[in-house]
Amino acid sequence: MKTGSGGHYIPEVSCASWRLGVEAHNVIDWKTVPISCEGYIGNYILGDQYRSDSKTVNQQAYFYAKTLNITSRDVWVFDIDETSLSNLPYYAEHGFGVEPYNATAFNQWVDLGTAPALPETLKLYKKLLSLGVKIVFLTGRPLDQTTVTTANLKRAGYHTWFKLILKDTSIYHGKTAVTYKSSERKKLEEKGYNIIGNIGDQWSDILGTNTGDRTFKLPDPMYYIS
Amino acid sequence: MKTGSGGHYIPEVSCASWRLGVEAHNVIDWKTVPISCEGYIGNYILGDQYRSDSKTVNQQAYFYAKTLNITSRDVWVFDIDETSLSNLPYYAEHGFGVEPYNATAFNQWVDLGTAPALPETLKLYKKLLSLGVKIVFLTGRPLDQTTVTTANLKRAGYHTWFKLILKDTSIYHGKTAVTYKSSERKKLEEKGYNIIGNIGDQWSDILGTNTGDRTFKLPDPMYYIS
Repeated sequence: MKTGSGGHYIPEVSCASWRLGVEAHNVIDWKTVPISCEGYIGNYILGDQYRSDSKTVNQQAYFYAKTLNITSRDVWVFDIDETSLSNLPYYAEHGFGVEPYNATAFNQWVDLGTAPALPETLKLYKKLLSLGVKIVFLTGRPLDQTTVTTANLKRAGYHTWFKLILKDTSIYHGKTAVTYKSSERKKLEEKGYNIIGNIGDQWSDILGTNTGDRTFKLPDPMYYIS
Repeated sequence: MKTGSGGHYIPEVSCASWRLGVEAHNVIDWKTVPISCEGYIGNYILGDQYRSDSKTVNQQAYFYAKTLNITSRDVWVFDIDETSLSNLPYYAEHGFGVEPYNATAFNQWVDLGTAPALPETLKLYKKLLSLGVKIVFLTGRPLDQTTVTTANLKRAGYHTWFKLILKDTSIYHGKTAVTYKSSERKKLEEKGYNIIGNIGDQWSDILGTNTGDRTFKLPDPMYYIS
Protein backbone atom coordinates (compact mmCIF):
# COMPACT_ATOMS: atom_id res chain seq x y z
CA MET A 1 0.00 0.00 0.00
CA LYS A 2 1.46 3.36 -0.98
CA THR A 3 0.24 6.91 -0.74
CA GLY A 4 -0.22 8.79 -3.98
CA SER A 5 1.43 12.06 -4.95
CA GLY A 6 0.77 14.99 -2.66
CA GLY A 7 0.44 12.73 0.38
CA HIS A 8 -3.13 11.69 -0.41
CA TYR A 9 -4.18 8.14 0.14
CA ILE A 10 -4.71 6.12 -2.99
CA PRO A 11 -8.26 4.75 -3.47
CA GLU A 12 -7.21 1.24 -2.40
CA VAL A 13 -6.23 2.61 1.01
CA SER A 14 -9.00 5.13 1.61
CA CYS A 15 -11.82 2.94 0.25
CA ALA A 16 -10.55 0.15 2.51
CA SER A 17 -10.78 2.63 5.41
CA TRP A 18 -14.30 3.59 4.42
CA ARG A 19 -15.31 -0.08 4.30
CA LEU A 20 -13.73 -0.82 7.68
CA GLY A 21 -15.48 2.27 9.06
CA VAL A 22 -18.80 0.89 7.84
CA GLU A 23 -18.22 -2.57 9.31
CA ALA A 24 -17.16 -1.24 12.72
CA HIS A 25 -20.15 1.14 12.88
CA ASN A 26 -18.11 4.30 12.64
CA VAL A 27 -19.46 5.35 9.25
CA ILE A 28 -23.25 5.37 9.65
CA ASP A 29 -26.37 6.73 7.96
CA TRP A 30 -24.74 6.79 4.53
CA LYS A 31 -26.90 6.81 1.41
CA THR A 32 -24.64 5.35 -1.28
CA VAL A 33 -21.13 3.99 -1.75
CA PRO A 34 -18.68 6.83 -2.57
CA ILE A 35 -18.38 7.02 -6.37
CA SER A 36 -14.60 6.80 -6.13
CA CYS A 37 -14.97 3.42 -4.39
CA GLU A 38 -17.18 1.68 -6.97
CA GLY A 39 -14.26 -0.24 -8.46
CA TYR A 40 -12.83 -1.12 -5.07
CA ILE A 41 -16.16 -2.36 -3.68
CA GLY A 42 -17.00 -4.29 -6.84
CA ASN A 43 -13.65 -6.07 -6.73
CA TYR A 44 -14.06 -6.77 -3.03
CA ILE A 45 -17.52 -8.21 -3.24
CA LEU A 46 -16.83 -10.37 -6.30
CA GLY A 47 -13.47 -11.56 -5.00
CA ASP A 48 -12.08 -13.89 -2.37
CA GLN A 49 -11.96 -11.34 0.42
CA TYR A 50 -15.73 -10.99 0.84
CA ARG A 51 -16.13 -14.76 0.90
CA SER A 52 -13.31 -15.14 3.41
CA ASP A 53 -14.68 -12.32 5.59
CA SER A 54 -18.11 -13.98 5.62
CA LYS A 55 -16.55 -17.31 6.46
CA THR A 56 -14.70 -15.92 9.48
CA VAL A 57 -17.90 -14.43 10.93
CA ASN A 58 -19.92 -17.61 10.43
CA GLN A 59 -17.11 -19.72 11.86
CA GLN A 60 -16.99 -17.58 15.00
CA ALA A 61 -20.75 -18.01 15.31
CA TYR A 62 -20.44 -21.78 15.09
CA PHE A 63 -17.50 -21.95 17.52
CA TYR A 64 -19.68 -20.04 19.98
CA ALA A 65 -22.80 -22.20 19.41
CA LYS A 66 -20.80 -25.39 19.92
CA THR A 67 -19.97 -24.32 23.49
CA LEU A 68 -23.65 -24.14 24.50
CA ASN A 69 -26.04 -26.73 25.86
CA ILE A 70 -28.92 -26.28 23.44
CA THR A 71 -32.49 -26.58 24.71
CA SER A 72 -35.79 -26.59 22.85
CA ARG A 73 -36.31 -22.91 23.72
CA ASP A 74 -33.11 -21.78 22.00
CA VAL A 75 -33.49 -19.87 18.76
CA TRP A 76 -31.04 -18.19 16.39
CA VAL A 77 -32.17 -15.17 14.40
CA PHE A 78 -31.04 -14.84 10.79
CA ASP A 79 -31.58 -11.78 8.65
CA ILE A 80 -32.32 -12.65 5.01
CA ASP A 81 -30.93 -10.20 2.42
CA GLU A 82 -27.11 -10.20 2.24
CA THR A 83 -27.15 -12.58 5.23
CA SER A 84 -28.95 -15.76 4.16
CA LEU A 85 -29.63 -14.85 0.52
CA SER A 86 -27.35 -12.84 -1.74
CA ASN A 87 -28.66 -10.15 -4.04
CA LEU A 88 -25.29 -9.81 -5.71
CA PRO A 89 -26.70 -10.64 -9.17
CA TYR A 90 -28.88 -7.54 -8.74
CA TYR A 91 -26.22 -5.23 -7.28
CA ALA A 92 -23.67 -6.24 -9.91
CA GLU A 93 -26.07 -4.70 -12.44
CA HIS A 94 -26.64 -1.62 -10.29
CA GLY A 95 -23.23 -0.22 -9.42
CA PHE A 96 -22.55 -2.20 -6.21
CA GLY A 97 -24.25 0.40 -4.04
CA VAL A 98 -23.16 3.50 -5.93
CA GLU A 99 -26.65 3.95 -7.39
CA PRO A 100 -29.37 5.15 -5.00
CA TYR A 101 -31.79 2.43 -3.89
CA ASN A 102 -34.51 1.76 -6.45
CA ALA A 103 -37.42 -0.03 -4.77
CA THR A 104 -39.22 -0.89 -8.01
CA ALA A 105 -36.20 -2.48 -9.66
CA PHE A 106 -35.16 -4.26 -6.47
CA ASN A 107 -38.61 -5.74 -5.86
CA GLN A 108 -38.72 -7.00 -9.45
CA TRP A 109 -35.49 -8.86 -8.69
CA VAL A 110 -36.86 -10.23 -5.40
CA ASP A 111 -39.99 -11.47 -7.16
CA LEU A 112 -37.87 -13.68 -9.40
CA GLY A 113 -37.11 -15.74 -6.28
CA THR A 114 -33.70 -16.72 -7.61
CA ALA A 115 -31.34 -15.17 -5.07
CA PRO A 116 -28.59 -17.68 -4.24
CA ALA A 117 -27.59 -18.61 -0.70
CA LEU A 118 -24.61 -16.95 0.89
CA PRO A 119 -22.63 -20.18 1.07
CA GLU A 120 -20.90 -19.56 4.40
CA THR A 121 -24.19 -18.63 6.07
CA LEU A 122 -25.86 -21.74 4.67
CA LYS A 123 -23.12 -23.80 6.32
CA LEU A 124 -23.80 -22.13 9.68
CA TYR A 125 -27.53 -22.69 9.25
CA LYS A 126 -27.02 -26.41 8.67
CA LYS A 127 -24.65 -26.75 11.62
CA LEU A 128 -27.06 -24.94 13.94
CA LEU A 129 -29.90 -27.19 12.83
CA SER A 130 -27.78 -30.24 13.58
CA LEU A 131 -27.09 -28.83 17.06
CA GLY A 132 -30.86 -28.63 17.58
CA VAL A 133 -31.15 -24.84 17.41
CA LYS A 134 -34.46 -23.40 16.17
CA ILE A 135 -34.00 -21.08 13.19
CA VAL A 136 -35.91 -17.80 12.94
CA PHE A 137 -35.69 -15.70 9.79
CA LEU A 138 -36.44 -12.05 10.55
CA THR A 139 -36.51 -9.80 7.50
CA GLY A 140 -37.48 -6.27 6.54
CA ARG A 141 -39.14 -7.71 3.43
CA PRO A 142 -42.88 -6.90 3.51
CA LEU A 143 -45.56 -9.54 4.21
CA ASP A 144 -46.66 -9.60 0.56
CA GLN A 145 -43.29 -11.16 -0.31
CA THR A 146 -43.96 -14.16 1.94
CA THR A 147 -44.61 -16.64 -0.87
CA VAL A 148 -41.64 -15.68 -3.01
CA THR A 149 -39.34 -15.49 0.02
CA THR A 150 -40.40 -18.92 1.24
CA ALA A 151 -39.79 -20.40 -2.20
CA ASN A 152 -36.47 -18.62 -2.60
CA LEU A 153 -35.19 -19.79 0.79
CA LYS A 154 -36.05 -23.41 -0.02
CA ARG A 155 -34.59 -23.19 -3.51
CA ALA A 156 -31.35 -21.79 -2.05
CA GLY A 157 -31.02 -24.69 0.40
CA TYR A 158 -32.76 -23.37 3.53
CA HIS A 159 -35.33 -26.14 3.68
CA THR A 160 -36.73 -25.80 7.18
CA TRP A 161 -37.19 -23.23 9.91
CA PHE A 162 -39.14 -22.54 13.06
CA LYS A 163 -40.44 -19.11 12.07
CA LEU A 164 -40.26 -16.72 9.14
CA ILE A 165 -41.10 -13.17 10.16
CA LEU A 166 -41.75 -10.57 7.47
CA LYS A 167 -42.57 -6.94 8.11
CA ASP A 168 -46.20 -6.04 8.64
CA THR A 169 -46.07 -2.58 7.15
CA SER A 170 -49.48 -1.72 8.65
CA ILE A 171 -47.83 -1.95 12.10
CA TYR A 172 -44.30 -0.81 11.35
CA HIS A 173 -44.86 1.77 8.64
CA GLY A 174 -42.31 4.57 9.11
CA LYS A 175 -40.47 2.71 11.88
CA THR A 176 -36.77 2.00 11.60
CA ALA A 177 -35.43 -1.49 11.10
CA VAL A 178 -33.95 -1.31 14.61
CA THR A 179 -37.40 -0.66 16.10
CA TYR A 180 -39.17 -3.30 14.00
CA LYS A 181 -36.60 -6.00 14.62
CA SER A 182 -36.25 -5.25 18.33
CA SER A 183 -39.99 -5.44 18.72
CA GLU A 184 -40.26 -8.80 16.92
CA ARG A 185 -37.37 -10.23 18.93
CA LYS A 186 -39.07 -9.06 22.11
CA LYS A 187 -42.22 -10.97 21.12
CA LEU A 188 -40.11 -14.10 20.70
CA GLU A 189 -38.59 -13.69 24.15
CA GLU A 190 -41.99 -12.97 25.70
CA LYS A 191 -43.14 -16.32 24.32
CA GLY A 192 -40.33 -17.95 26.27
CA TYR A 193 -37.75 -18.38 23.55
CA ASN A 194 -34.12 -17.61 24.25
CA ILE A 195 -32.24 -15.86 21.44
CA ILE A 196 -28.80 -17.42 21.73
CA GLY A 197 -27.49 -15.82 18.56
CA ASN A 198 -28.39 -13.19 16.00
CA ILE A 199 -26.69 -12.67 12.65
CA GLY A 200 -27.13 -9.97 10.04
CA ASP A 201 -25.28 -7.78 7.59
CA GLN A 202 -26.71 -4.52 8.95
CA TRP A 203 -26.01 -2.99 12.34
CA SER A 204 -29.78 -2.45 12.57
CA ASP A 205 -30.11 -6.25 12.68
CA ILE A 206 -28.12 -6.49 15.90
CA LEU A 207 -28.58 -3.16 17.72
CA GLY A 208 -31.60 -2.13 19.80
CA THR A 209 -33.17 -4.35 22.45
CA ASN A 210 -33.49 -8.12 22.85
CA THR A 211 -30.48 -8.45 20.57
CA GLY A 212 -29.62 -11.98 21.67
CA ASP A 213 -26.85 -13.46 23.77
CA ARG A 214 -24.31 -12.86 21.00
CA THR A 215 -24.53 -10.95 17.76
CA PHE A 216 -22.63 -11.37 14.52
CA LYS A 217 -22.09 -8.73 11.85
CA LEU A 218 -21.58 -10.00 8.33
CA PRO A 219 -19.84 -7.70 5.86
CA ASP A 220 -21.93 -5.46 3.62
CA PRO A 221 -20.34 -2.40 2.05
CA MET A 222 -23.18 -1.87 -0.47
CA TYR A 223 -25.96 -0.29 1.55
CA TYR A 224 -26.95 0.99 4.98
CA ILE A 225 -30.34 0.49 6.65
CA SER A 226 -31.05 2.34 9.89
CA MET B 1 -6.15 -11.35 -3.89
CA LYS B 2 -5.86 -15.01 -4.85
CA THR B 3 -6.50 -18.24 -3.07
CA GLY B 4 -3.58 -20.59 -2.58
CA SER B 5 -3.32 -24.16 -3.77
CA GLY B 6 -5.93 -26.53 -2.47
CA GLY B 7 -8.52 -23.76 -2.22
CA HIS B 8 -7.17 -22.37 1.05
CA TYR B 9 -7.07 -18.65 1.59
CA ILE B 10 -3.62 -17.11 1.49
CA PRO B 11 -2.56 -15.30 4.69
CA GLU B 12 -3.20 -11.88 3.15
CA VAL B 13 -6.88 -12.82 2.75
CA SER B 14 -7.52 -14.76 5.93
CA CYS B 15 -5.54 -12.45 8.23
CA ALA B 16 -7.49 -9.54 6.72
CA SER B 17 -10.67 -11.44 7.63
CA TRP B 18 -9.44 -12.02 11.15
CA ARG B 19 -8.65 -8.31 11.53
CA LEU B 20 -12.07 -7.28 10.15
CA GLY B 21 -13.67 -9.79 12.50
CA VAL B 22 -11.89 -8.16 15.43
CA GLU B 23 -12.89 -4.63 14.42
CA ALA B 24 -16.55 -5.53 13.92
CA HIS B 25 -16.72 -7.39 17.25
CA ASN B 26 -17.19 -10.82 15.75
CA VAL B 27 -13.85 -12.18 16.95
CA ILE B 28 -13.81 -11.58 20.71
CA ASP B 29 -12.00 -12.72 23.85
CA TRP B 30 -8.83 -13.59 21.94
CA LYS B 31 -5.53 -13.81 23.77
CA THR B 32 -2.92 -13.16 21.07
CA VAL B 33 -2.66 -12.43 17.36
CA PRO B 34 -2.56 -15.70 15.35
CA ILE B 35 1.11 -16.54 14.75
CA SER B 36 0.48 -16.85 11.00
CA CYS B 37 -0.69 -13.20 10.98
CA GLU B 38 2.37 -11.61 12.63
CA GLY B 39 3.78 -10.40 9.31
CA TYR B 40 0.42 -9.19 8.07
CA ILE B 41 -0.40 -7.28 11.26
CA GLY B 42 3.11 -5.78 11.47
CA ASN B 43 2.87 -4.52 7.90
CA TYR B 44 -0.63 -3.18 8.51
CA ILE B 45 0.19 -1.30 11.68
CA LEU B 46 3.44 0.20 10.36
CA GLY B 47 1.96 1.09 6.98
CA ASP B 48 -0.43 3.59 5.48
CA GLN B 49 -3.57 1.53 6.03
CA TYR B 50 -3.61 1.82 9.83
CA ARG B 51 -3.05 5.57 9.61
CA SER B 52 -5.79 5.92 7.00
CA ASP B 53 -8.20 3.74 9.00
CA SER B 54 -7.58 5.86 12.10
CA LYS B 55 -8.08 9.03 10.10
CA THR B 56 -11.47 7.89 8.80
CA VAL B 57 -12.75 7.15 12.31
CA ASN B 58 -11.55 10.47 13.73
CA GLN B 59 -12.98 12.36 10.76
CA GLN B 60 -16.39 10.77 11.26
CA ALA B 61 -16.19 11.78 14.91
CA TYR B 62 -15.44 15.38 13.97
CA PHE B 63 -18.15 15.52 11.28
CA TYR B 64 -20.60 14.39 13.97
CA ALA B 65 -19.35 16.83 16.62
CA LYS B 66 -19.61 19.75 14.18
CA THR B 67 -23.36 19.18 13.85
CA LEU B 68 -23.96 19.71 17.59
CA ASN B 69 -24.63 22.83 19.64
CA ILE B 70 -21.99 22.41 22.32
CA THR B 71 -22.79 23.42 25.90
CA SER B 72 -20.56 23.62 28.98
CA ARG B 73 -21.93 20.26 30.17
CA ASP B 74 -20.78 18.40 27.05
CA VAL B 75 -17.84 16.05 27.44
CA TRP B 76 -16.05 13.66 25.09
CA VAL B 77 -14.41 10.54 26.52
CA PHE B 78 -11.04 9.45 25.13
CA ASP B 79 -9.33 6.21 25.99
CA ILE B 80 -5.54 6.55 26.23
CA ASP B 81 -3.52 3.53 25.04
CA GLU B 82 -3.79 2.95 21.26
CA THR B 83 -6.36 5.76 21.18
CA SER B 84 -4.63 8.95 22.33
CA LEU B 85 -1.11 7.57 22.82
CA SER B 86 0.55 4.91 20.71
CA ASN B 87 2.56 2.09 22.24
CA LEU B 88 3.77 0.99 18.83
CA PRO B 89 7.45 1.44 19.77
CA TYR B 90 6.81 -1.19 22.45
CA TYR B 91 4.73 -3.59 20.36
CA ALA B 92 7.18 -3.41 17.44
CA GLU B 93 9.71 -4.98 19.83
CA HIS B 94 7.20 -7.56 21.10
CA GLY B 95 5.75 -9.26 18.03
CA PHE B 96 2.80 -6.91 17.33
CA GLY B 97 0.47 -8.84 19.62
CA VAL B 98 1.75 -12.34 18.90
CA GLU B 99 3.53 -12.51 22.27
CA PRO B 100 1.31 -12.89 25.35
CA TYR B 101 0.89 -9.70 27.39
CA ASN B 102 3.83 -9.07 29.72
CA ALA B 103 2.78 -6.61 32.43
CA THR B 104 6.30 -6.04 33.77
CA ALA B 105 7.81 -5.20 30.40
CA PHE B 106 4.82 -3.09 29.37
CA ASN B 107 4.82 -1.05 32.57
CA GLN B 108 8.54 -0.40 32.15
CA TRP B 109 7.72 1.07 28.74
CA VAL B 110 4.84 3.14 30.15
CA ASP B 111 7.11 4.51 32.87
CA LEU B 112 9.40 6.00 30.23
CA GLY B 113 6.56 8.40 29.42
CA THR B 114 7.62 8.65 25.79
CA ALA B 115 4.62 7.21 23.94
CA PRO B 116 3.86 9.40 20.91
CA ALA B 117 0.40 10.72 20.09
CA LEU B 118 -1.75 8.93 17.58
CA PRO B 119 -1.67 11.82 15.12
CA GLU B 120 -5.23 11.52 13.82
CA THR B 121 -6.63 11.37 17.36
CA LEU B 122 -4.59 14.42 18.36
CA LYS B 123 -6.23 16.30 15.48
CA LEU B 124 -9.70 15.31 16.72
CA TYR B 125 -8.76 16.34 20.27
CA LYS B 126 -7.69 19.80 19.10
CA LYS B 127 -10.81 20.28 16.98
CA LEU B 128 -13.10 19.25 19.85
CA LEU B 129 -11.32 21.67 22.18
CA SER B 130 -11.85 24.45 19.65
CA LEU B 131 -15.56 23.56 19.54
CA GLY B 132 -15.68 24.00 23.32
CA VAL B 133 -16.04 20.33 24.21
CA LYS B 134 -14.64 19.20 27.57
CA ILE B 135 -12.12 16.37 27.25
CA VAL B 136 -12.15 13.41 29.63
CA PHE B 137 -9.40 10.82 29.47
CA LEU B 138 -10.60 7.49 30.88
CA THR B 139 -7.94 4.80 31.05
CA GLY B 140 -7.40 1.36 32.48
CA ARG B 141 -3.94 2.49 33.61
CA PRO B 142 -3.71 2.27 37.42
CA LEU B 143 -3.70 5.35 39.67
CA ASP B 144 0.02 4.97 40.43
CA GLN B 145 0.71 5.84 36.79
CA THR B 146 -0.97 9.25 37.15
CA THR B 147 2.25 11.29 37.11
CA VAL B 148 3.87 9.57 34.18
CA THR B 149 0.59 9.53 32.23
CA THR B 150 0.03 13.25 32.80
CA ALA B 151 3.58 14.04 31.67
CA ASN B 152 3.29 11.74 28.66
CA LEU B 153 0.00 13.24 27.50
CA LYS B 154 1.44 16.77 27.68
CA ARG B 155 4.66 15.77 25.97
CA ALA B 156 2.65 14.17 23.16
CA GLY B 157 0.64 17.35 22.58
CA TYR B 158 -2.44 16.83 24.77
CA HIS B 159 -1.87 19.94 26.87
CA THR B 160 -5.19 20.37 28.61
CA TRP B 161 -8.21 18.41 29.73
CA PHE B 162 -11.18 18.53 32.03
CA LYS B 163 -10.60 15.22 33.77
CA LEU B 164 -8.07 12.38 33.72
CA ILE B 165 -9.51 9.20 35.24
CA LEU B 166 -7.19 6.32 36.05
CA LYS B 167 -8.26 3.01 37.53
CA ASP B 168 -8.51 2.76 41.29
CA THR B 169 -7.55 -0.89 41.61
CA SER B 170 -8.78 -0.99 45.21
CA ILE B 171 -12.31 -0.41 43.87
CA TYR B 172 -12.15 -2.18 40.52
CA HIS B 173 -9.83 -5.07 41.26
CA GLY B 174 -10.99 -8.08 39.25
CA LYS B 175 -13.64 -6.08 37.39
CA THR B 176 -13.69 -5.99 33.61
CA ALA B 177 -12.83 -2.86 31.68
CA VAL B 178 -16.48 -2.68 30.57
CA THR B 179 -17.63 -2.55 34.20
CA TYR B 180 -14.97 -0.08 35.31
CA LYS B 181 -15.47 2.30 32.39
CA SER B 182 -19.28 2.11 32.50
CA SER B 183 -19.19 2.92 36.20
CA GLU B 184 -16.90 5.94 35.75
CA ARG B 185 -18.99 7.24 32.86
CA LYS B 186 -22.10 6.87 35.01
CA LYS B 187 -20.48 9.05 37.69
CA LEU B 188 -19.84 11.72 35.07
CA GLU B 189 -23.45 11.67 33.96
CA GLU B 190 -24.69 11.72 37.54
CA LYS B 191 -22.71 14.93 38.00
CA GLY B 192 -24.71 16.42 35.14
CA TYR B 193 -22.26 16.00 32.29
CA ASN B 194 -23.48 14.83 28.92
CA ILE B 195 -21.20 12.40 27.11
CA ILE B 196 -21.65 13.45 23.50
CA GLY B 197 -18.92 11.17 22.19
CA ASN B 198 -16.71 8.31 23.28
CA ILE B 199 -13.70 7.00 21.39
CA GLY B 200 -11.48 4.02 22.04
CA ASP B 201 -9.60 1.20 20.35
CA GLN B 202 -11.27 -1.54 22.43
CA TRP B 203 -14.91 -2.57 22.29
CA SER B 204 -14.77 -2.51 26.10
CA ASP B 205 -14.29 1.26 25.81
CA ILE B 206 -17.63 1.73 24.11
CA LEU B 207 -19.86 -1.14 25.27
CA GLY B 208 -21.71 -1.36 28.61
CA THR B 209 -23.81 1.48 30.01
CA ASN B 210 -23.59 5.27 29.73
CA THR B 211 -21.67 4.77 26.52
CA GLY B 212 -22.29 8.27 25.20
CA ASP B 213 -24.49 9.64 22.41
CA ARG B 214 -22.14 8.23 19.76
CA THR B 215 -19.22 5.87 20.01
CA PHE B 216 -16.19 5.45 17.78
CA LYS B 217 -14.02 2.35 17.45
CA LEU B 218 -10.42 2.95 16.42
CA PRO B 219 -8.55 0.03 14.88
CA ASP B 220 -6.44 -2.21 17.08
CA PRO B 221 -5.53 -5.68 15.89
CA MET B 222 -2.80 -6.17 18.54
CA TYR B 223 -4.69 -7.00 21.71
CA TYR B 224 -8.15 -7.54 23.20
CA ILE B 225 -9.33 -6.27 26.60
CA SER B 226 -12.71 -7.43 27.88
